[in-house]
Amino acid sequence: MSTNRLIYLPLGGAGEIGMNAYVYGYGPEDRERLIVVDLGVTFGDMESSPGIDLIMADMRWLVERADRIEAIFITHAHEDHIGALGHLWPMLQKRVYARRFTAAIGRLKFEEQGHPLEMIQTVEPRPAVIEAGPFKVQFVPVAHSIPESSALVIDTPAGRIVHSGDFKLDASPIVGEPWSEETFRQIAAERPVKVLMCDSTNVFTPHPGRSEATLADPIHGLIANAGGMVVATTFASNVARLKTLAEAGRAAGRTVCLLGRAMQRMVKVAGETGVLTGFPPTVPVEQAAEISRQNLMLIVTGSQGERRAATAQLSRGKYLGMEMKEGDMFLFSSKTIPGNERGVLRIWNALSEMGVDVVDDTNGRYHVSGHANRPDLEKMHEVLQPKILIPMHGEHRHLREHAKLGAARGIATEVATNGMMIDLTGDVPEVAEYIDTGRVYLDGSTLIGAMDGVVRDRIRMALNGHAVATVILDEQDEPLGEAWVELMGLPTAGKRGTALAEMMEAGVNDLLATAPVKVLRDDDKLEEAIRRVLRQVAIEEIGKKPETTIIVSRLIEE
Amino acid sequence: MSTNRLIYLPLGGAGEIGMNAYVYGYGPEDRERLIVVDLGVTFGDMESSPGIDLIMADMRWLVERADRIEAIFITHAHEDHIGALGHLWPMLQKRVYARRFTAAIGRLKFEEQGHPLEMIQTVEPRPAVIEAGPFKVQFVPVAHSIPESSALVIDTPAGRIVHSGDFKLDASPIVGEPWSEETFRQIAAERPVKVLMCDSTNVFTPHPGRSEATLADPIHGLIANAGGMVVATTFASNVARLKTLAEAGRAAGRTVCLLGRAMQRMVKVAGETGVLTGFPPTVPVEQAAEISRQNLMLIVTGSQGERRAATAQLSRGKYLGMEMKEGDMFLFSSKTIPGNERGVLRIWNALSEMGVDVVDDTNGRYHVSGHANRPDLEKMHEVLQPKILIPMHGEHRHLREHAKLGAARGIATEVATNGMMIDLTGDVPEVAEYIDTGRVYLDGSTLIGAMDGVVRDRIRMALNGHAVATVILDEQDEPLGEAWVELMGLPTAGKRGTALAEMMEAGVNDLLATAPVKVLRDDDKLEEAIRRVLRQVAIEEIGKKPETTIIVSRLIEE
Repeated sequence: MSTNRLIYLPLGGAGEIGMNAYVYGYGPEDRERLIVVDLGVTFGDMESSPGIDLIMADMRWLVERADRIEAIFITHAHEDHIGALGHLWPMLQKRVYARRFTAAIGRLKFEEQGHPLEMIQTVEPRPAVIEAGPFKVQFVPVAHSIPESSALVIDTPAGRIVHSGDFKLDASPIVGEPWSEETFRQIAAERPVKVLMCDSTNVFTPHPGRSEATLADPIHGLIANAGGMVVATTFASNVARLKTLAEAGRAAGRTVCLLGRAMQRMVKVAGETGVLTGFPPTVPVEQAAEISRQNLMLIVTGSQGERRAATAQLSRGKYLGMEMKEGDMFLFSSKTIPGNERGVLRIWNALSEMGVDVVDDTNGRYHVSGHANRPDLEKMHEVLQPKILIPMHGEHRHLREHAKLGAARGIATEVATNGMMIDLTGDVPEVAEYIDTGRVYLDGSTLIGAMDGVVRDRIRMALNGHAVATVILDEQDEPLGEAWVELMGLPTAGKRGTALAEMMEAGVNDLLATAPVKVLRDDDKLEEAIRRVLRQVAIEEIGKKPETTIIVSRLIEE
Repeated sequence: MSTNRLIYLPLGGAGEIGMNAYVYGYGPEDRERLIVVDLGVTFGDMESSPGIDLIMADMRWLVERADRIEAIFITHAHEDHIGALGHLWPMLQKRVYARRFTAAIGRLKFEEQGHPLEMIQTVEPRPAVIEAGPFKVQFVPVAHSIPESSALVIDTPAGRIVHSGDFKLDASPIVGEPWSEETFRQIAAERPVKVLMCDSTNVFTPHPGRSEATLADPIHGLIANAGGMVVATTFASNVARLKTLAEAGRAAGRTVCLLGRAMQRMVKVAGETGVLTGFPPTVPVEQAAEISRQNLMLIVTGSQGERRAATAQLSRGKYLGMEMKEGDMFLFSSKTIPGNERGVLRIWNALSEMGVDVVDDTNGRYHVSGHANRPDLEKMHEVLQPKILIPMHGEHRHLREHAKLGAARGIATEVATNGMMIDLTGDVPEVAEYIDTGRVYLDGSTLIGAMDGVVRDRIRMALNGHAVATVILDEQDEPLGEAWVELMGLPTAGKRGTALAEMMEAGVNDLLATAPVKVLRDDDKLEEAIRRVLRQVAIEEIGKKPETTIIVSRLIEE
């Protein structure tokens, strides 16, 4: 039998917030034609992925089916939706569709990696339709915290899917298009919505979302009353917020300067693609240094405490000639993403030491979220009346809560996390298969598997330190000279006050002097025996077991 | 001239939340007699102190003046106030004063370390007075989130100091004494308060604090409506909360079981010292396994997501025979301390995957803070009318904000952070001296200095990986055999797909074959040259620079 089926497979973004990568398929089982929606990244952290720059969804499943992929669609230009495009595209090599602003950001990434720019195609919003195999796709403008965010209407022979993308119900988003209830009612009226694949980020936030436009007054008021220099940070891609901030600065008689490459790039691309107009004039930082502090406003990158961004640099002292001082004001027009608290507070405290007054969003006056809150999600459910709701873009707790919300309305739902292939052909979603998915790390310039053990070893070295022992044996398996131990990340001395490395060397020398020939002859046995000595000495002396590397060199007669 | 002066020196806890350690002195300059208030710890984290178990204030300044120390006072038994006592006491060897419950916890720590128990002396609260050199000290009961928390009234010839300890204005704290406005008015009436040294933790929380007693109704209601097993977590030392939780469980017809050693110990000590009465009966975990889930309530440790505590264990599966299932409820009756978000959310998501309903304190119904909020601090200022306010127990931003609050009332203040010795003799605080202070790490069983480089090396290995190269040279400085490279925490292969270690070995072998004799003869030069080769190969192949250990072995004729 070869009836067609409609499938959904999240490879990233479902069961986590980050590295969005969703697959839809239509066709006979195991021969479905496929489209990919978004290719995003997650950022590494010291706790679980030290040294890792970016984290992306494992593409293995798609690569093995590359001949079945019709196209790649990118909903918007946030890094968790487009950040992996440059890195993963070579494995897929398919045409990429995105709206003007998103496409421009995508092309910058392609340029960096030397991919063919013509493979990114700019598309117009609905009613324009892109045909990709059995799929007909429209980009529907929604409000979010970056210009030109889009929901996708994906028509298939098995029914209409609305893939929400990241969205909020904002009728006055300052930059870009508002969310239009009328449009979405029309979408549902045109053809019943079979499946709503829906953003779940803010499902726990009980009150309706607020418009970007509500921030203008409080921000204008705050900056109008500031004395010294004003510095504000927000996400570099939140062009609407940048405009609100810059306008408030200008209204207060301040010259505005944008600090941080990501931010300058966003404003430039937004201007070039026509999504941003009327942005107040800005001056380069060299010129800003000559303006008196009370007439100056800096808008800077690094709202999440990123160590190399402008905010962190300013908190450490002079940066590009600018320096914060007593009486200045620093505004976090942003929310701290869970996990970034320590970095952000470190900056706040450093600024406090300089006498800078820090204003954050504790009271919700200087920031609004770009995601639909709980009542807004309910509104979306009500407007679209989908037969099936599949929550996405959320940790498990968000997906589960969102599914409950849908179920309460009588909508069939399923909590589908990364790797769960869902069959959407019938009236209720069914789990078709569990796919082996995973994460890939960009480490320097190399892509490594999350399970390769590299990061595990780094974490172990960080927790336990690293002891390295070398011994040299001659042709008769007799030790030549003495063992040598080097330590990294370990106390130099322990309980007895004697150098730890020397105690380990003594232990290894004892072992070499007394070990039976069968141990001395066998590299594995000898290494294991030396490892045991190192760990035993360490446990006794410093109460912990270091990671070990044992190098046994054997001199062979030449 | 040798007039007496009154000094204050925070060694920990001022400019951070954690590792409280404060010193007061009175006498001629540099000959002041000293008392120490609190010896607490901070916990390490992967980002800034991987592998470190505990962080404590550096005692060097005190140790050099040990003959001038009169006594140690501990305000309450939270780890950030008493946690370092067992580890640091041997350096000070002075008598320790604390109230009954705190003293009992202190003795447990002394027992673990083999210190003389009689050096901890139990004291009665005010009006009892401890004389310690020029200081007369009274313990004043205050409400907090652990039994028998105390403020100290410290009388000196230069005036009366009130050291607030950790406190909240709670008239019905369930366990322990309430905060008594009358008592504090009396203290100020008896003798004017020269200095208030005051908790600053919640200075940014605008509303008045709520009483512990307000939680009983919501928690009773929540548990009464639960279906499956109920599991609740809070800080192990919050005995009042444990009682509220246990009573709510019992009222709902559930048998209560305490899981987690720290919690069992706290309840035991609180019972033995008489501060806790009427705690509902509990059963051991072996017995709990035989009770049906809807009749069972577990109260467990690990509210901050600690990996080895009961909460995290339960989120990973079966723990001591107990297992959470679909329809169970998990209550975080706690606040997540900044920095612990990731760990707590990991648990929430794991429980969500099991189908467990998680209730947290997002809406403020199931937890109240143990610290005075902003209006409560203002009340304290008003009641005590101090001449001088020195904020403590806070990050810099808290101290600065608290100082502003005092200044607004016309009180002389100073933001005094760790190492700033403040002269309190006059009407306004003056910075007398900046002391070199620092942190000491407990790493396994060893105390190491935070600046020793051990942790720095661990962080570097975690970020960059570690490459180890060994070469052997003979008596003529000729290489014997080939170079050997071992990698830890690094990708096995890079850009060209060849094994990274082999490429490094080839590079080192090339170097050995071509290096001039003056390099081959000089260990430092040779190591540096090898290091450069390893890093260059790594940069080219994997785009990052690993940490390196180079071992040059030279065979000397024997």
